[in-house]
Amino acid sequence: MEIFKTTFDMQAWSKNQKLKNKIICLVPTMGYLHKGHLSLIEKGKQYSDKIVLSIFVNPTQFGENEDLDSYPVDLQNDLAHAEKLNVDAVFLPTRQEMYKKNYQTYVELTNLPDHLCGISRPVHFKGVATIVTKLFNIVTPDIAVFGQKDYQQLQVIKQMVQDLNFNIKIIGAPIIREHDGLAMSSRNTYLTKAQRKSGLCLSIAIGKAKQMIKDKEMSTKTIIKKIEDYIGKVENAKIDYISFSDPVTLDNVKVIKGKILLALAVKIGKTRLIDNAVIDPQDLI
Amino acid sequence: MEIFKTTFDMQAWSKNQKLKNKIICLVPTMGYLHKGHLSLIEKGKQYSDKIVLSIFVNPTQFGENEDLDSYPVDLQNDLAHAEKLNVDAVFLPTRQEMYKKNYQTYVELTNLPDHLCGISRPVHFKGVATIVTKLFNIVTPDIAVFGQKDYQQLQVIKQMVQDLNFNIKIIGAPIIREHDGLAMSSRNTYLTKAQRKSGLCLSIAIGKAKQMIKDKEMSTKTIIKKIEDYIGKVENAKIDYISFSDPVTLDNVKVIKGKILLALAVKIGKTRLIDNAVIDPQDLI
Repeated sequence: MEIFKTTFDMQAWSKNQKLKNKIICLVPTMGYLHKGHLSLIEKGKQYSDKIVLSIFVNPTQFGENEDLDSYPVDLQNDLAHAEKLNVDAVFLPTRQEMYKKNYQTYVELTNLPDHLCGISRPVHFKGVATIVTKLFNIVTPDIAVFGQKDYQQLQVIKQMVQDLNFNIKIIGAPIIREHDGLAMSSRNTYLTKAQRKSGLCLSIAIGKAKQMIKDKEMSTKTIIKKIEDYIGKVENAKIDYISFSDPVTLDNVKVIKGKILLALAVKIGKTRLIDNAVIDPQDLI
Repeated sequence: MEIFKTTFDMQAWSKNQKLKNKIICLVPTMGYLHKGHLSLIEKGKQYSDKIVLSIFVNPTQFGENEDLDSYPVDLQNDLAHAEKLNVDAVFLPTRQEMYKKNYQTYVELTNLPDHLCGISRPVHFKGVATIVTKLFNIVTPDIAVFGQKDYQQLQVIKQMVQDLNFNIKIIGAPIIREHDGLAMSSRNTYLTKAQRKSGLCLSIAIGKAKQMIKDKEMSTKTIIKKIEDYIGKVENAKIDYISFSDPVTLDNVKVIKGKILLALAVKIGKTRLIDNAVIDPQDLI
């Protein structure tokens, strides 16, 4: 497994692979890998000849009062996982390598970020679109895999790829959950034992919503009210948003008529957790 | 010479060239080619195996009251020129192909556009950075050539390429002038005979500035005042800006100490003309 710390070396490797007509898959991460990340790597392998894993805690996607400085790091463990999964190359740049002095170029979307997480994290998706553009230009993948847990991020990337004409296929991979339903996240490590239990309220809320839809409740206002009541009673839990949206445009939906995205963000103590499900009422019959 | 109207076909051609290890050079234009454009093609040939000429009048780089609708077009002449110069491929997309329904992604720089032309054309460089990013992703060139007449554009592109990690070498090509000194521009076609004469004031002003610097006048305020007085007396001429700037950051310079950019924009009737020179006082001794 090769490890590249500079843009120059990474681009040279990729260029060489392309000359050999190898299909390159990029799995972009912020490290502190869990089973969710590993599933992205496994997914990517199905479609490619070479897997590049990038590990970079991108400062531009964190807001001023967010957890950039405390974001968990365990590089040794990450590299061991990557090695075990036969990753071909790891791109591991420094902040200085990615954002040089006088850095001033940003990629921004005008509509998709004005929903869901973008409302409480106004600079987040600008940072995401910018770093992903950079990684795409450095790794020049044919394919890139992103987790559906960050559903809005996945939609932002898909839209950006279409708009900016990146010749890259974007693949979404399903949420991986702990045995009790908690969506895997590097941020789960912040949770105390009591908070860990409270954190289950997100996946439980999704289960409750599915049951209501199965019982023919199609008013999203009614369902959201009931979920709010439930989470309101959970210790340490403070709702950021609960939203039913169109799975592509992310626009709000009032009455469920077909496939719909239920997404929610809840603060458990200081830790902000997210979860979501695309629900097709027909599947629940 | 191949002509591609879709992103799909253009990308397929480029991918095939890359597999053959061919060095691709892109010359992006808005068409209505003049000798300036042709010199970019000639320049590109020195560094590459394959030349791609793009012709696209990009709506997102025009402001609301600018000349998008009247921008001159002569496709037949453009293609004849390209054929004659042995251009390998012409990329000729429609607006619909480049900006699909629900288009929403833009590339923007935070510093360089806040100078010179960016002040009176606030959306211009956002449009330029966006379309050039798209063209880079579609043509995937190794090299791209831009004219130094649009000096600020060239700096914006160079900065963007560095910031977003495009693996593309950007080459600037010198301004090509008519026999009397008028910088070549597709927009010169707008000028009446009398305006054409007035248009000479830009290159004459640059000549006057060079003479003053040669005569050891190093205060940019003094030089600008004298040029303003001169252009103020030219029929139909209205100054947009006259500026001495650092050639890289484009920051204003008060006292000339070394290499400096003199850039100016003047409206001749309704037509906005630009011109510039990078002046090294040592060359004038």
